Amino acid sequence: MNLKIAVLPGDGIGPEVILQAKKALYAIAEVYNHEFVFEDALMGAVAIDKTGNPLPEQTLNLCLNTDAVLLGAIGDPKYDNNPNAKVRPEQGLLKLRKELGLFANIRPIKPYKALIEASPLKREIIEGADFTIFRELTGGAYFGAKTLNDEGTHASDLCEYTEEEITRIAHLAFKSAQKRRKKLTMVDKANVLETSRLWRKVVQKVSESYPDVKLDFLFVDNAAMQLILNPKQFDVILTENLFGDILSDEASVITGSIGLLPSVSLGEKNALFEPIHGSYPQAKGKNIANPIASILAAALLLEHFGLTKEANVIYKAVEKAIEYKVVTVDLKPDSKFGTNEVGEFVSNFI
Amino acid sequence: MNLKIAVLPGDGIGPEVILQAKKALYAIAEVYNHEFVFEDALMGAVAIDKTGNPLPEQTLNLCLNTDAVLLGAIGDPKYDNNPNAKVRPEQGLLKLRKELGLFANIRPIKPYKALIEASPLKREIIEGADFTIFRELTGGAYFGAKTLNDEGTHASDLCEYTEEEITRIAHLAFKSAQKRRKKLTMVDKANVLETSRLWRKVVQKVSESYPDVKLDFLFVDNAAMQLILNPKQFDVILTENLFGDILSDEASVITGSIGLLPSVSLGEKNALFEPIHGSYPQAKGKNIANPIASILAAALLLEHFGLTKEANVIYKAVEKAIEYKVVTVDLKPDSKFGTNEVGEFVSNFI
Ligand SMILES: CC(C)[C@H](C(=O)O)[C@@H](O)C(=O)O
Ligand SMILES: CC(C)[C@H](C(=O)O)[C@@H](O)C(=O)O
Repeated sequence: MNLKIAVLPGDGIGPEVILQAKKALYAIAEVYNHEFVFEDALMGAVAIDKTGNPLPEQTLNLCLNTDAVLLGAIGDPKYDNNPNAKVRPEQGLLKLRKELGLFANIRPIKPYKALIEASPLKREIIEGADFTIFRELTGGAYFGAKTLNDEGTHASDLCEYTEEEITRIAHLAFKSAQKRRKKLTMVDKANVLETSRLWRKVVQKVSESYPDVKLDFLFVDNAAMQLILNPKQFDVILTENLFGDILSDEASVITGSIGLLPSVSLGEKNALFEPIHGSYPQAKGKNIANPIASILAAALLLEHFGLTKEANVIYKAVEKAIEYKVVTVDLKPDSKFGTNEVGEFVSNFI
Repeated sequence: MNLKIAVLPGDGIGPEVILQAKKALYAIAEVYNHEFVFEDALMGAVAIDKTGNPLPEQTLNLCLNTDAVLLGAIGDPKYDNNPNAKVRPEQGLLKLRKELGLFANIRPIKPYKALIEASPLKREIIEGADFTIFRELTGGAYFGAKTLNDEGTHASDLCEYTEEEITRIAHLAFKSAQKRRKKLTMVDKANVLETSRLWRKVVQKVSESYPDVKLDFLFVDNAAMQLILNPKQFDVILTENLFGDILSDEASVITGSIGLLPSVSLGEKNALFEPIHGSYPQAKGKNIANPIASILAAALLLEHFGLTKEANVIYKAVEKAIEYKVVTVDLKPDSKFGTNEVGEFVSNFI
């Protein structure tokens, strides 16, 4: 298979971990006779530094015209702690999501057997947990109108949703539930928010087309608690953008490290693959960042194009790395292995 | 001391647990020679059923003219799953918060020694954790304009904040931090939301008056993760309404049961005390609901009026109940004790 892949290493540890994902994909291409062409481009703080724009036109065009996008991470504290900054790295990512129409962010959560002990949660709570979060990605408060008055004393964010936006991701989530344990949990705050009530109504309607899937509802405050009290109760979780942001990071604790979780963001035509962790600027250049989430993002990419066998080899390689404890310090505090060594292990295994 | 206390038992298990809180307060009044006058009033689904209004005028007037309000819980699934319901129990609570100007909700989180094993988190993660969440309670998306178009296909919620709203709760939180371990963590989503950037700016400004308090910032997605990974890092957490709703319920898992956590909501003149759990309709009337959160809400009430000795007796009684395992099934699955028995134990201890 020929694939053209746009690579956006981004900020902080992004470039280091993405390098390991590329190494894995190169190894796959060689062994299985594919041709993967990578083209790197700027996004995030690095793009602001070089061009003034967090998502340069060139990067956007590249992403629109490739088969897939592989993203590292973006974000830089020099913008976070400056409430007056007019341009921010995150604007690049949000614009990219919007322009590529990536309306569904999908994050599978499943602990690795060999890592059960690395989780802050007790073994009996997480063993057997296996669920997927469907987070709406191009709507809600992320994209609604924002205001700040001239005196800088009043601010607002508008959260908006339309039936259509809810319907399309709901179908994806129900279809996924049909292939899994046939349970879908809608998370919202319908006792307070109008948008949540719309979500509830539309999801109830969509559910009529999936009579074999059991639908239930949880308020987001309760969901934040249930994820930790009893994660095994979940199969597919469906939620809006901001709730999904919070809950999917929270759910990462089930696996012991956020450094293990990839996600895919899907649109009608485009797909973006990334680790769910941030740019972790404190670790930049130290060869300590965990590359597994990025490597697994590459595996999700392969799966997306039907290269299941190839993806499985990567999953296997990652499992072995974990089993042999060729892991970074987030998983084993006294580990002697760094970002590079873990990446080498995986690509050599392939 | 003479205190007039408005009691709003509310829905579901509210009346049962509130009864135990009242019993504890009666016992305190007798032993320590106080006069507590209770007046019950309707709020929530029960108020809708009887008057059509989730917060009848009479209830509001009572609350405005008492020293304190003691609340059970409100909410009923018959409204939750009906996105078209025009009147909802929660409207009563939100209106009460607004009318009483209860802008700060304060939830202390600290695991009981005897209950460390009841938490889904590992002992080493939670032992020693001790923090307080300051949640803004009368602003944000809870109270902003809501819209739904006529076709029912587009909905919106507006999240708004003013400098003044942020300033007043920030002062409370910083003052609390000064009396504690002098660390304040502001939780927001300043990389995306305009209101969060206003929060960050205003809190930075307020912090100048508290040079002895160390201020740091966390994005809400990261905070949801850190609460579980390492709750000991927190001292005082300050956040807006909806984030506070989610994070404080999430944080309850640290103590092993949401049935143990009380909260106080403060305004300039008024104060409301309640368990943080919901109305738990499935348990209604079964004598299985944990009354401890309500009893501790009563203790917070005593503390609020300077009755520290009396409050401490209640804390002691609760600790003993837990130590002797006179607890409900949420804490001990094979327990023979119910709501009533736990309440009796506490009031007899006093
Ligand atoms: C970087 C930030 C804007 C982003 C988000 O909030 O969506 C990140 O947290 C994520 O989850 O991908
Ligand atoms: C009942 C509901 C409206 C309320 C809230 O969201 O504030 C509750 O969850 C709480 O935290 O007190």
